[in-house]
Amino acid sequence: MKNTFGSALTLTLFGESHGKAIGAVLDGLAPGLCVSEESIAAYLALRRPAGAISTARREPDEFEILSGVLNGKTCGTPLCIVIPNKDVRPGDYDEMRDLLRPGHADFTANVKYGGFQDARGGGHQSARLTAALVAAGAILLDALKDRGIKIGTHIKRCACVDDAPFGDIERDIEALEYKPFATISDEAGERMRAAILDAKEDGDSVGGVLETAVCGLPAGVGEPWFDSLEGVLAHALFSIPAVKGVEFGAGFSISDMRGTQANDAFYCENGVIKTCTNNNGGVNGGISNGMPVLFSVAYKPTPTISLPQETVNIRTMESAYIRGAGRHDPCVAHRARAVQDAVTALCIADMLTVRYGVGYFTK
Amino acid sequence: MKNTFGSALTLTLFGESHGKAIGAVLDGLAPGLCVSEESIAAYLALRRPAGAISTARREPDEFEILSGVLNGKTCGTPLCIVIPNKDVRPGDYDEMRDLLRPGHADFTANVKYGGFQDARGGGHQSARLTAALVAAGAILLDALKDRGIKIGTHIKRCACVDDAPFGDIERDIEALEYKPFATISDEAGERMRAAILDAKEDGDSVGGVLETAVCGLPAGVGEPWFDSLEGVLAHALFSIPAVKGVEFGAGFSISDMRGTQANDAFYCENGVIKTCTNNNGGVNGGISNGMPVLFSVAYKPTPTISLPQETVNIRTMESAYIRGAGRHDPCVAHRARAVQDAVTALCIADMLTVRYGVGYFTK
Amino acid sequence: MKNTFGSALTLTLFGESHGKAIGAVLDGLAPGLCVSEESIAAYLALRRPAGAISTARREPDEFEILSGVLNGKTCGTPLCIVIPNKDVRPGDYDEMRDLLRPGHADFTANVKYGGFQDARGGGHQSARLTAALVAAGAILLDALKDRGIKIGTHIKRCACVDDAPFGDIERDIEALEYKPFATISDEAGERMRAAILDAKEDGDSVGGVLETAVCGLPAGVGEPWFDSLEGVLAHALFSIPAVKGVEFGAGFSISDMRGTQANDAFYCENGVIKTCTNNNGGVNGGISNGMPVLFSVAYKPTPTISLPQETVNIRTMESAYIRGAGRHDPCVAHRARAVQDAVTALCIADMLTVRYGVGYFTK
Amino acid sequence: MKNTFGSALTLTLFGESHGKAIGAVLDGLAPGLCVSEESIAAYLALRRPAGAISTARREPDEFEILSGVLNGKTCGTPLCIVIPNKDVRPGDYDEMRDLLRPGHADFTANVKYGGFQDARGGGHQSARLTAALVAAGAILLDALKDRGIKIGTHIKRCACVDDAPFGDIERDIEALEYKPFATISDEAGERMRAAILDAKEDGDSVGGVLETAVCGLPAGVGEPWFDSLEGVLAHALFSIPAVKGVEFGAGFSISDMRGTQANDAFYCENGVIKTCTNNNGGVNGGISNGMPVLFSVAYKPTPTISLPQETVNIRTMESAYIRGAGRHDPCVAHRARAVQDAVTALCIADMLTVRYGVGYFTK
Repeated sequence: MKNTFGSALTLTLFGESHGKAIGAVLDGLAPGLCVSEESIAAYLALRRPAGAISTARREPDEFEILSGVLNGKTCGTPLCIVIPNKDVRPGDYDEMRDLLRPGHADFTANVKYGGFQDARGGGHQSARLTAALVAAGAILLDALKDRGIKIGTHIKRCACVDDAPFGDIERDIEALEYKPFATISDEAGERMRAAILDAKEDGDSVGGVLETAVCGLPAGVGEPWFDSLEGVLAHALFSIPAVKGVEFGAGFSISDMRGTQANDAFYCENGVIKTCTNNNGGVNGGISNGMPVLFSVAYKPTPTISLPQETVNIRTMESAYIRGAGRHDPCVAHRARAVQDAVTALCIADMLTVRYGVGYFTK
Repeated sequence: MKNTFGSALTLTLFGESHGKAIGAVLDGLAPGLCVSEESIAAYLALRRPAGAISTARREPDEFEILSGVLNGKTCGTPLCIVIPNKDVRPGDYDEMRDLLRPGHADFTANVKYGGFQDARGGGHQSARLTAALVAAGAILLDALKDRGIKIGTHIKRCACVDDAPFGDIERDIEALEYKPFATISDEAGERMRAAILDAKEDGDSVGGVLETAVCGLPAGVGEPWFDSLEGVLAHALFSIPAVKGVEFGAGFSISDMRGTQANDAFYCENGVIKTCTNNNGGVNGGISNGMPVLFSVAYKPTPTISLPQETVNIRTMESAYIRGAGRHDPCVAHRARAVQDAVTALCIADMLTVRYGVGYFTK
Repeated sequence: MKNTFGSALTLTLFGESHGKAIGAVLDGLAPGLCVSEESIAAYLALRRPAGAISTARREPDEFEILSGVLNGKTCGTPLCIVIPNKDVRPGDYDEMRDLLRPGHADFTANVKYGGFQDARGGGHQSARLTAALVAAGAILLDALKDRGIKIGTHIKRCACVDDAPFGDIERDIEALEYKPFATISDEAGERMRAAILDAKEDGDSVGGVLETAVCGLPAGVGEPWFDSLEGVLAHALFSIPAVKGVEFGAGFSISDMRGTQANDAFYCENGVIKTCTNNNGGVNGGISNGMPVLFSVAYKPTPTISLPQETVNIRTMESAYIRGAGRHDPCVAHRARAVQDAVTALCIADMLTVRYGVGYFTK
Repeated sequence: MKNTFGSALTLTLFGESHGKAIGAVLDGLAPGLCVSEESIAAYLALRRPAGAISTARREPDEFEILSGVLNGKTCGTPLCIVIPNKDVRPGDYDEMRDLLRPGHADFTANVKYGGFQDARGGGHQSARLTAALVAAGAILLDALKDRGIKIGTHIKRCACVDDAPFGDIERDIEALEYKPFATISDEAGERMRAAILDAKEDGDSVGGVLETAVCGLPAGVGEPWFDSLEGVLAHALFSIPAVKGVEFGAGFSISDMRGTQANDAFYCENGVIKTCTNNNGGVNGGISNGMPVLFSVAYKPTPTISLPQETVNIRTMESAYIRGAGRHDPCVAHRARAVQDAVTALCIADMLTVRYGVGYFTK
């Protein structure tokens, strides 16, 4: 349903990059959940550009909760959170207004909206809107944590540099929390950062892969057809700007395995059924099996780069060259981590509400 | 919404593998579309097991259209198609009823449905239900073809053997149509088949990757957030049994590129804006750009194998060994191709209806 | 969503009056609910035409459950129920195919479906499809009764004759159950029947008002905006053919009251808060208050009558006269009662599932 | 879906009566529609309390459009409109916080939200939120008018005084536009106002019935089952606070007619098929027939009154008396008219978008 996502717990997104504000409405929240403005601010800080490896745009991300919260607790009614746009320079985009930025949505938005879209800085399609996703997600991440469900994301690969794999997942998630550059191996993180700066110096950009783990999700969540755990998560994850691939467990590499390798054998430990391996990423037949849910998401390199690129002027239909104006990131992977956590929390909280009702969060 | 998928054009799936029948209800179809029973039968034949590389279960897939069609044309009302189960041997599953098959949904279904599910042959979660998807999809594939939109899928990789890549896509799609083993290179197909037979002889199974191309889709289809072309397709594709990954365009490999490589430069040809490369798979910012839509889907090896596997008896909670009983495929990739086409047609037809109303198909 | 209704528990309707079959898919059912074929047959019998006051069409309504039930219990997967059409005489409609029946949907269906609809006997818009609603509703009525929620409907008014009002509602519901002509006062029922026969003899038809009571619904069900208990029920009730009005509690007459009369004062009895009167029909602000939910539904007289009526020939666009061919009812109120019960059960079961998850029915 | 309504064009409502702000997000709007802030202000003025017959609360209803509009035209992206609460006196509600107001949602909200709701002035369930509905509706009313679809509502009955019936509907709609007390007969309006003042002097309140006409809606809009024109409108209308009944055309009185009277005979005028009467209110079988759509909505008397009423203290569970504190209206009918217009516009615009796509508004 367009800019609204979710079944029992829904998020509606609005705003444009250089308009008055961006924001989100969260509906279907259980009443009585704690809403910590500190926590929201902390998650927003993780998404905010940081130093040389990020854009120079500086948004304080001062948010305002307009509804749905009283005395620090959810009312059970729609929670609207608004983040005004402050560091707006729409003029940056004037001279290149008619030049279609390769890899961006300028052309497709133009066709879809017939030229009436707010094209400045990507408008409604700007990654700026993910700040609203993160703010809403922060509330859900906290609510899930209170119920023993922990979500964490690391930069699995960036600029062709690999991070260490998940080991003790719960501990890794804890260590990653609030880490500004979310790698499991600090050394790998250093090398990634260096590679990002290299690309930046070349006027270019790099991409990456982010891997998320969800621990503590009970078995039995998700539907066999269509609203499978994988399908719902993938649906939402592909909304994050720059995402071009989603895989669960062993993902694409499972298609090179044989059944004997790929199948996760069952065993029983203290009355709980577990699997020896987790190639299926905690999901069988669309439904959670109680093992950690694991998935990886591929981000393309930031399309805005300083190097000149061939394109078309949409007004004159003539060939042209474009260079990245506006402020932009040489890599989005490290910032996208907070977004991926937030989107995951939204899906998981929704699917738990579908299965158990709002009571899941109030018991 | 559980077993119903789509916004303006919806498909509802029902049935169990060894119950009376499986089927689907397609709602939101434009009136006046041709429904060819020959065409439905031909698509079902593509999905049906074929020779040594497939299961020995033989389902004639005789379908019956119960509603929504008069004199060979859609009425515009819900079309219900039913496929009775004929070659049913639920007894095959008796002796291993309590043994959780690794890689299958036995355990998760048991938790979700509290033991009330029809467990025979995977029940509602069996790939058998994809026959209903294919039957419904056949109607949509024909309707889309009439509007100049062509969909085709090839086995990009199977048992570690690569097919040739898409070249002249429209011609490739034509050549693939009704090909029983859908590779672009016949020679690659031969090697894949041999590798499948090898695995079968070992009592094992293999996986693969299927790549789909959609040609002729107008630019401007899809939403910027949530109901992006990628998100909606991925959501539906992850419902196909055994799917563990979905990627668009260059997919995961785009995350290793730099922006200069990944960006698809624009040019203008006869007044139409196109891109020089298609790393973004025909989608920018969630919206189609008029280039072929390209995506790849990873299938895991068939979980049912003849080799013994470690598992748990759900009744006694004791360790046990299981060997694949029932009839099964050493590989699903070649049969899944018809399913992937069908699911793609459902999503594309739905998104066109969202944008243009049912009039899109009647003009 | 067109022919699918519900949020967490959905019903999808398909079929045409003189096609092969009609049917419904119920999805989102809790696993383990008893499905009694006797009970379904009994409810269908209540809807079936009975004697002189009904149509001469005789449908045995032999239904078949194709999926979702095993050993008499729901699996938790989609339940598809099909009722083949047996007593089909499409020829009845041949001579008047082009004559728009006043009060029917012939004209509007023609515009909507561009002439491709199955026009025989009203096609997809025929009240025949309510048999599928009743069959599905029977399962839910039984499931709700098991949880202490009882639903009953009486013919409040028919052919200008009033029934006695609800007194001891629980007892009235019990007495109405399986009563073929559902009045609280048998004497009023006799007079209604006589008035229906009068109209029939005149070649005419009559309408009526059906009132439903829901007892045992816990307080707190329904949403403040949009998915209010009243809104959801009204949405579904207006789908029943011939319905032109829906009112809750005192309904239209409340608008003539003053606040002092209309307000239902609260009191406390054994720790339970109740209201002294029930002018609000058990709903405040869209949410159930624990009192019986009460609503009345207005049915127009059957549009098909034997007397000649002025109309237009849609092919020639010339004036014409039409007389009711086909078989038809002089009144639908007594048969609609089973439909109104079924639709109510669908809405109530859905809203309970939204609030509590499927667990509501399994605990 | 809780606080979101609509299929292709959706409205999401948020806010509490005495919180920071109320607002709405409209999604699915066609791009390029004119958004007139004057027009929004004019509609809001119609809803605003006026003089002695209304509450003393004075809200300037200064709204702010946060997104989705550029240079006075819709972008095609979500439009968020926010109306800050200014004249807030939450203290008014302190002393009676625990006293359940009869006829209000205090009790049901308490059960549903477990005491976490914002109870001040009805919180999220306050009629205050209809200001956001009206603001959003104003945009749609203008867009529909541009396409030749005119919507108007009059006070059909108030405090037992009847207005004159619709005559020349298009002219009546024009005359009603911006009329502060929307009666067709000014004399009837005077008598209604006097009766409202009478009730106010008695410390009591009155109700009324509002009738809406929609002219210019093309035939063929609406679905046969579930998403009928009547069902969708009724669903939304029952969300308006105080509504207890909805009827189309002759409504409840049609159930006292015979078929010969109730049926609307067809005739042909200049190639257009019309009906001689309009007892069916412009809808046959759930689908518009091209005649004016007509429906009436029953509003109960304002529950807040100055006279003492019996109730319960929710904290102590003891009996208590309550008198209306806070500021309130002796009648809501005249203010609800703008709300009823807005809700109608939302439903009609949505259903046109479902049928024709966003192109309906851009052609």
